[in-house]
Amino acid sequence: MDFIQLSHGSGGEETNKLIEELFFKYLGNEFLLQKNDATTLGKISGEIAMTTDSFVVDPIFFNGGNIGKLSICGTVNDLSVVGAIPLYLSLSLIIEEGLAINELEEIIKTISHEAMKANIKIVCGDTKVVEKGNGDKLFINTTGIGVISRNRPLGLRSIKVGDKIIISGTIGEHGAAIMNERNNLCESSLLKSDCQSLNGIIESILNSSSEIKVMRDPTRGGVITTLLEIIDASNKEMLIYEDKLPISAEVSEFSGLLGLNPLYMANEGKVIIIVSNQHAIDVLNLLRNSQEGQEATIIGEVIADGKKNLYLETIIGAKIKCFPMKGEQLPRIC
Amino acid sequence: MDFIQLSHGSGGEETNKLIEELFFKYLGNEFLLQKNDATTLGKISGEIAMTTDSFVVDPIFFNGGNIGKLSICGTVNDLSVVGAIPLYLSLSLIIEEGLAINELEEIIKTISHEAMKANIKIVCGDTKVVEKGNGDKLFINTTGIGVISRNRPLGLRSIKVGDKIIISGTIGEHGAAIMNERNNLCESSLLKSDCQSLNGIIESILNSSSEIKVMRDPTRGGVITTLLEIIDASNKEMLIYEDKLPISAEVSEFSGLLGLNPLYMANEGKVIIIVSNQHAIDVLNLLRNSQEGQEATIIGEVIADGKKNLYLETIIGAKIKCFPMKGEQLPRIC
Repeated sequence: MDFIQLSHGSGGEETNKLIEELFFKYLGNEFLLQKNDATTLGKISGEIAMTTDSFVVDPIFFNGGNIGKLSICGTVNDLSVVGAIPLYLSLSLIIEEGLAINELEEIIKTISHEAMKANIKIVCGDTKVVEKGNGDKLFINTTGIGVISRNRPLGLRSIKVGDKIIISGTIGEHGAAIMNERNNLCESSLLKSDCQSLNGIIESILNSSSEIKVMRDPTRGGVITTLLEIIDASNKEMLIYEDKLPISAEVSEFSGLLGLNPLYMANEGKVIIIVSNQHAIDVLNLLRNSQEGQEATIIGEVIADGKKNLYLETIIGAKIKCFPMKGEQLPRIC
Repeated sequence: MDFIQLSHGSGGEETNKLIEELFFKYLGNEFLLQKNDATTLGKISGEIAMTTDSFVVDPIFFNGGNIGKLSICGTVNDLSVVGAIPLYLSLSLIIEEGLAINELEEIIKTISHEAMKANIKIVCGDTKVVEKGNGDKLFINTTGIGVISRNRPLGLRSIKVGDKIIISGTIGEHGAAIMNERNNLCESSLLKSDCQSLNGIIESILNSSSEIKVMRDPTRGGVITTLLEIIDASNKEMLIYEDKLPISAEVSEFSGLLGLNPLYMANEGKVIIIVSNQHAIDVLNLLRNSQEGQEATIIGEVIADGKKNLYLETIIGAKIKCFPMKGEQLPRIC
């Protein structure tokens, strides 16, 4: 049997075969193998964090990863930025009838690999199949829980004028890679998704500094959307500098050609950190000495003009106000 | 704006409007309103249980409920049957472009109502929009966590010959209702989904008896699939009696007409309980005195012939072996 059929979602014999031969084979652990309606995880000592994401990225395979890798990294990163150590993930698949089983297997293998790297366990799952034409190959939901037993970000209220805004690396790579593949713009392109789990480096940063104010991963909507969300919730103003923005030559050229702004483009392996001025250089150095943060840069700072705006100081010195993204730059980026 | 557009899933301005005007309006609580990448829940004292389900039911509105009600009840029940008190749920939507916003609002209202009834909180969420033709109106994932601080089922290993099999009410109603609506078989039908949360009654049962061996909710694949799963995991045999099966006249007539077996049809508001012979009558009486369990019945018992089979004793006294469901009786039942 080479393609997913409706019967794989029936809950009967074919579903069980798929679960045994694919999910248990690659993802099996003491929790998943309880095979119960809900999985018992034992006690967790410490405060708990929870996050959920559904992934509908198109295409499901792209340069730098696939929908499976994205679903693990995305949820791991969402837990990490609030200061939680990711522990357990649920994995729920909505498969379109006709998906090649070897493609599904490839994705499940990737999930297994990424889960191991991030040191988290898939503890429960679900599989549904929809008729051809009522889905699109594969949608994945991952919901994660983690424990907050280390330092965590101080929270929005602690943000002060002079705090620095750091990004852990180059901007817009996931968005550019997906857009390029979707539109077959350039087959031999160097554009590659930055999709990666950041729990390791985020743990190091939180352990190294007690003055991390906020962390966010700038996914859908990109850097500007994320900073505007922080501004909205913290009632502060921020200024970023165009000449400091780490943007690769490939992304720069690509967005130039298409007339797109990389600051609205999704990142899937980057974190924005607001940190006190005093600790900013130490955090920057720590990042730059890590594999995940070699291109980390201080891109701006918290300022005060009472207007709750985000400003971009351009290369020629103009200070322009950044607006929320309107409309849809690219559907199904994640 | 009356219909969901791709921009509602962009992560930008339109997404925020939808979140504020729909999700926060009906579901807002101190957790959801943290508006962070992950939600911090505080400590949970006791063992934790986790479960996930994606719901793709077609149609999304049906007699007895809608996809929103189903998504809450299904996850609440999965937690309850392992002895957990459901606490927190994530809610993740994959919406097809073009869904009427008033339909979405209706579903979110139902979710709010059911969550309140089951005393659980929606603590985090996600919204994705896919292009028209790449989804089907609405898919929902709910992932739940609960705490095990009361009695819980003793587990499969404690199942013994003579234990009784109880079902909390009539069989096959969700499956029959969905099948009827999908095929427009009978517009004025009395067929109605049994979709309901069972956490209250399950809590009462677990508090009343220390000899509950296993509980399962017989959803996809119905009663036979659920009992076969228990048999597979426990290495026991079971016998159920045709003349004891509580099946409503409507479901009986409907499945007779279509040549379907209600024992393979999905239930969304029923629980199967394996309990010691000594405690069976007390549990039955407790169920029958509850709103959710008025039609509860002892439908069979655990036997021993060493063959790991499920048998149905028919009305004329024949003992037939029950087989796993093959193929797909009805796609997208839940």
